[in-house]
Amino acid sequence: MWSGDDAAVVRVPLSSGSSPGQAPLLLLAADTVVAGVDADLSLTTLADFGWKAMAVNLSDIAAMGGRPDHALVSVVGLGPDELEDLYEGIVEAAAEFGCDVVGGDLSAGSEVVVSVAVTGWVDGEPVLRSGARPGDRIWVTGPLGAAAAGLRLLRQAGPVPHAWGQADQALVSAHARPHPAVAEGVIARLAGATAMIDVSDGLAADLDQLARRSGVGFELANVPVADGAAIDEALAGGDDYVLVFTTPGPVDVVRPFLAAGLPAPNMIGECVADPRLRRVAGKTLTVAGWEHSL
Amino acid sequence: MWSGDDAAVVRVPLSSGSSPGQAPLLLLAADTVVAGVDADLSLTTLADFGWKAMAVNLSDIAAMGGRPDHALVSVVGLGPDELEDLYEGIVEAAAEFGCDVVGGDLSAGSEVVVSVAVTGWVDGEPVLRSGARPGDRIWVTGPLGAAAAGLRLLRQAGPVPHAWGQADQALVSAHARPHPAVAEGVIARLAGATAMIDVSDGLAADLDQLARRSGVGFELANVPVADGAAIDEALAGGDDYVLVFTTPGPVDVVRPFLAAGLPAPNMIGECVADPRLRRVAGKTLTVAGWEHSL
Repeated sequence: MWSGDDAAVVRVPLSSGSSPGQAPLLLLAADTVVAGVDADLSLTTLADFGWKAMAVNLSDIAAMGGRPDHALVSVVGLGPDELEDLYEGIVEAAAEFGCDVVGGDLSAGSEVVVSVAVTGWVDGEPVLRSGARPGDRIWVTGPLGAAAAGLRLLRQAGPVPHAWGQADQALVSAHARPHPAVAEGVIARLAGATAMIDVSDGLAADLDQLARRSGVGFELANVPVADGAAIDEALAGGDDYVLVFTTPGPVDVVRPFLAAGLPAPNMIGECVADPRLRRVAGKTLTVAGWEHSL
Repeated sequence: MWSGDDAAVVRVPLSSGSSPGQAPLLLLAADTVVAGVDADLSLTTLADFGWKAMAVNLSDIAAMGGRPDHALVSVVGLGPDELEDLYEGIVEAAAEFGCDVVGGDLSAGSEVVVSVAVTGWVDGEPVLRSGARPGDRIWVTGPLGAAAAGLRLLRQAGPVPHAWGQADQALVSAHARPHPAVAEGVIARLAGATAMIDVSDGLAADLDQLARRSGVGFELANVPVADGAAIDEALAGGDDYVLVFTTPGPVDVVRPFLAAGLPAPNMIGECVADPRLRRVAGKTLTVAGWEHSL
């Protein structure tokens, strides 16, 4: 059965006599990126596209608190030279996040489609979308809106080479080479996260998913906005791949992040009992972002 | 590392103190089908296309001697009604072969692409392509050429409803709803198969793969041809998804197949030491089929 979570959770069929605790749980996720739909190849490279195909999948494993292990990559519509460019980004992401590409498939086609499936493992219980409770604090693993701002800059510059300043380069890179929060997801799980999701469609939309699955509402006070991004980009811009997670009030999550050498997560608000409540800084938040009219 | 086999083989990371024998090996495979490339949707239905997307993947697990377990299905380019048709075939294949669809992805796109990734498990050692030795017997799990003959009949009839006779219907079904030899693969492994591959590109091409990876040649005496199929279709026609496997001479494979309620496999020839030798009924076999000129 489809879990409705970022990744499916599968038990390893152990031989009789083994205790289930001896094997980790297997996580399975698959995501497809389509050129022209998920990326504009006039603005970013095929290597970036390959990186992104891996990143969106690795982020699904991260959002369960798992460690990615292997990937299968199926590619449609690329010739040998283009494939080499695509694979450059795939291999770089695979190496960066410790996920070995062990198979896949090449097909002819008129459109460039990259389908990746990833496996991951989790010792103990994975973090689902459905575990948040009223009163739980809501955290993000980093500032939001950088990817959307980067895409905005790329679109403004158009399909010509452009020398970016350092701050703008960071935004462009956040769009072209998003970093799945793999280490952060593991630490959040170990620290006691009750629910978690990755921000792929935008904080408003993804937090809405988490809230729906958990049967809670939320009240956000303070959303960290990436330098150079607008608040709208932070709330509704997708492709940031930071993780949003919840913890019971008393849990200390900052210390385990710092102990692991990771930046402290940002507390952005709290889950509330009214499942219809979706508020940021006193304004109502819709899936598409906040309501400017209010 | 890409194994070059039908599926990648992955060890379950057990907690320290567990013996590796307590967990089966995980098999991973992914195959993509593209409308207009892998299937002509004017001749077969979207449900058939969904079935085929599953079947080609299940066959990869079968060819390792494994049991399929879960599937992830990513679909590009279909609207809601078409998706329902496609899923009908996916779900039927999943049910038929005990493989639960646990996730996937839907994307917009101008071309219909279905990417499936499957997991499977194997207790003990999977059967690779590389284990055949000179003197090993070569077996197939059933007659060949039915799928190619079925496609020929469909092309002759064209894109209009057609009432097939019983024999022709069997050929058409072999093309539209190929049956991965899942049970056969497990029994072949248990019976002691040294190498195995599924016939997806045609017996000549796939046996060539097995022979190359094993460093052997082969001499075929007798290839079983499906009723109504031509010998060329049996040798070079793809999409049959029967398994071809090798066993050391003394091994009895017929008895275990019969004991499992499966049709006896057909012995079609023998592996030879000369890796360049590729012969069927005294004629040279190329990857594209046998040489008519000889």
